[in-house]
Amino acid sequence: MVIRKIIVGVMGGGMASPSDYKIAYNLGGLIAKEGWVLLNGGRPTGIMDASAKGAKDKGGLTVGILPAYDSHQASCYIDIPIVTGMGDGRNYINVLSSDIVVALPGKAGTISEIALALKNRKKVILVNFDTGVLFEDYSKEGLLKDARDEDEVINIIKEEFVLKQ
Amino acid sequence: MVIRKIIVGVMGGGMASPSDYKIAYNLGGLIAKEGWVLLNGGRPTGIMDASAKGAKDKGGLTVGILPAYDSHQASCYIDIPIVTGMGDGRNYINVLSSDIVVALPGKAGTISEIALALKNRKKVILVNFDTGVLFEDYSKEGLLKDARDEDEVINIIKEEFVLKQ
Amino acid sequence: MVIRKIIVGVMGGGMASPSDYKIAYNLGGLIAKEGWVLLNGGRPTGIMDASAKGAKDKGGLTVGILPAYDSHQASCYIDIPIVTGMGDGRNYINVLSSDIVVALPGKAGTISEIALALKNRKKVILVNFDTGVLFEDYSKEGLLKDARDEDEVINIIKEEFVLKQ
Amino acid sequence: MVIRKIIVGVMGGGMASPSDYKIAYNLGGLIAKEGWVLLNGGRPTGIMDASAKGAKDKGGLTVGILPAYDSHQASCYIDIPIVTGMGDGRNYINVLSSDIVVALPGKAGTISEIALALKNRKKVILVNFDTGVLFEDYSKEGLLKDARDEDEVINIIKEEFVLKQ
Repeated sequence: MVIRKIIVGVMGGGMASPSDYKIAYNLGGLIAKEGWVLLNGGRPTGIMDASAKGAKDKGGLTVGILPAYDSHQASCYIDIPIVTGMGDGRNYINVLSSDIVVALPGKAGTISEIALALKNRKKVILVNFDTGVLFEDYSKEGLLKDARDEDEVINIIKEEFVLKQ
Repeated sequence: MVIRKIIVGVMGGGMASPSDYKIAYNLGGLIAKEGWVLLNGGRPTGIMDASAKGAKDKGGLTVGILPAYDSHQASCYIDIPIVTGMGDGRNYINVLSSDIVVALPGKAGTISEIALALKNRKKVILVNFDTGVLFEDYSKEGLLKDARDEDEVINIIKEEFVLKQ
Repeated sequence: MVIRKIIVGVMGGGMASPSDYKIAYNLGGLIAKEGWVLLNGGRPTGIMDASAKGAKDKGGLTVGILPAYDSHQASCYIDIPIVTGMGDGRNYINVLSSDIVVALPGKAGTISEIALALKNRKKVILVNFDTGVLFEDYSKEGLLKDARDEDEVINIIKEEFVLKQ
Repeated sequence: MVIRKIIVGVMGGGMASPSDYKIAYNLGGLIAKEGWVLLNGGRPTGIMDASAKGAKDKGGLTVGILPAYDSHQASCYIDIPIVTGMGDGRNYINVLSSDIVVALPGKAGTISEIALALKNRKKVILVNFDTGVLFEDYSKEGLLKDARDEDEVINIIKEEFVLKQ
């Protein structure tokens, strides 16, 4: 019987600013060091590529849920490409497959993942991403949290999963 | 050869305030009167039920894209239940199948539909729904518009589809 | 409240022999004459195109569940294109959305639809399609039936849906 | 950059005969010993459970593409549960995500996976599974092959992936 590792979903834009790219890269590395699995949207760009590279540079395991029809579309830092062939329909699978979702800044794709996660009662940690009033109800419930940086993300995940068990 | 009718997607909460319910009901009726097809998430509740009832009361055609596994889960005002068996994964199909998307107030499910629509370059009309700064870039591009009421929704759709053709 | 029309799914190859094309065309027409809705995979080719054309020539209503990302990929005989953007993943939706499935000869795509229908306890009528021993258990249960031609298909559907109600 | 491991999809019935169960268990072990990844439908039953247990007993990595909405539905021998929430719609993802598909005896669910794999040009190896004439065209093309036992499966995969590279 397997002791299943925590799967941390890291979402964010296909285009990333240098500072967000760096946070995503560092976060991937920290997830790997904790022995957790990194899951993302699998594309070779932006936050997805950065977080996967960070995890691989620290010897982690990376899973990418691809919108594409072919595993060759994956980032070269993805160990396990899951090929859905269903475009952004795969955003739903991204969040259902994550034990917890971390969202760095992104546009409508990332916002859809935050929304689908909250709709399906997954905890979401926003890093450096101001979503305004839109998800206020979920913050009040404690489903949606803010983190300043990658270290605070790791601390929140530990509080949720490690200390509670 | 078919002259295809415009398909208007109407999204919004499974719970609706009386005033939003009334707008959705009226909007369904106006869509029917224009000879357009109403498409929504098909469930027998909130904005979905209201808009479908409004369209049927004016003799319109209604399509519901169900999250459920069984057509018996559909609103009784849906003519064509499309049974996806894929939960909120069907939100992607809702927006791709709509020529234009109208969003009344809702929570994370509705927000995911707005986001998936914009991500996939569908025009979205918000009615009485303040999404704050989150989708500002899409407003600037003209993809996202605001309408005060059901009449303004119809006018915007006519500008987009009827006058441009 | 809507009296929902029976939705008949007609599956079959993207390439069709002239005789299968003719059966599909005639079957579409008979479905329309009964006042039922024709549902198929929506593409402008083979059994899909033939059955939709047959239904439209008799004034029927046609729904196409498209694998594509864009409604422009639909057959011009489809009234309601449902745009899934999920490739053959849509085959599952084809069968769940049909009250009964009719399968004309096809290759692996059609076989996947027969299999998904039977797996999910939908009745399937094969027309001129010998599937060998593969689905024998389902024939014994009465889930899978054979029809010689379009008239026999209509009779079987009536036995299942009209006479039993 | 990751050297991606071959992902072998093992499909087959949720109910398995003792001899098929044993083949699936042994096959999982051999896949693990080659350093390949085992992918299956993830449920705690039949061929899925057997192949995952076999792989874990030899220290392999196992991925399960779940029809369910919740990772708790996975076999306890699955390392990475991918939660699709889309029922048998996930069969399409099973085959797209596999570099090669192995099918042990099963009913309509397994047949749908064979069909979806062949439709999408994935090689399929049947073990002890007589599908009659249905997929004959694909056998002639070399897409569909038969293996007597787990050892022959491994040899065919090596011919396809290792020797050709």
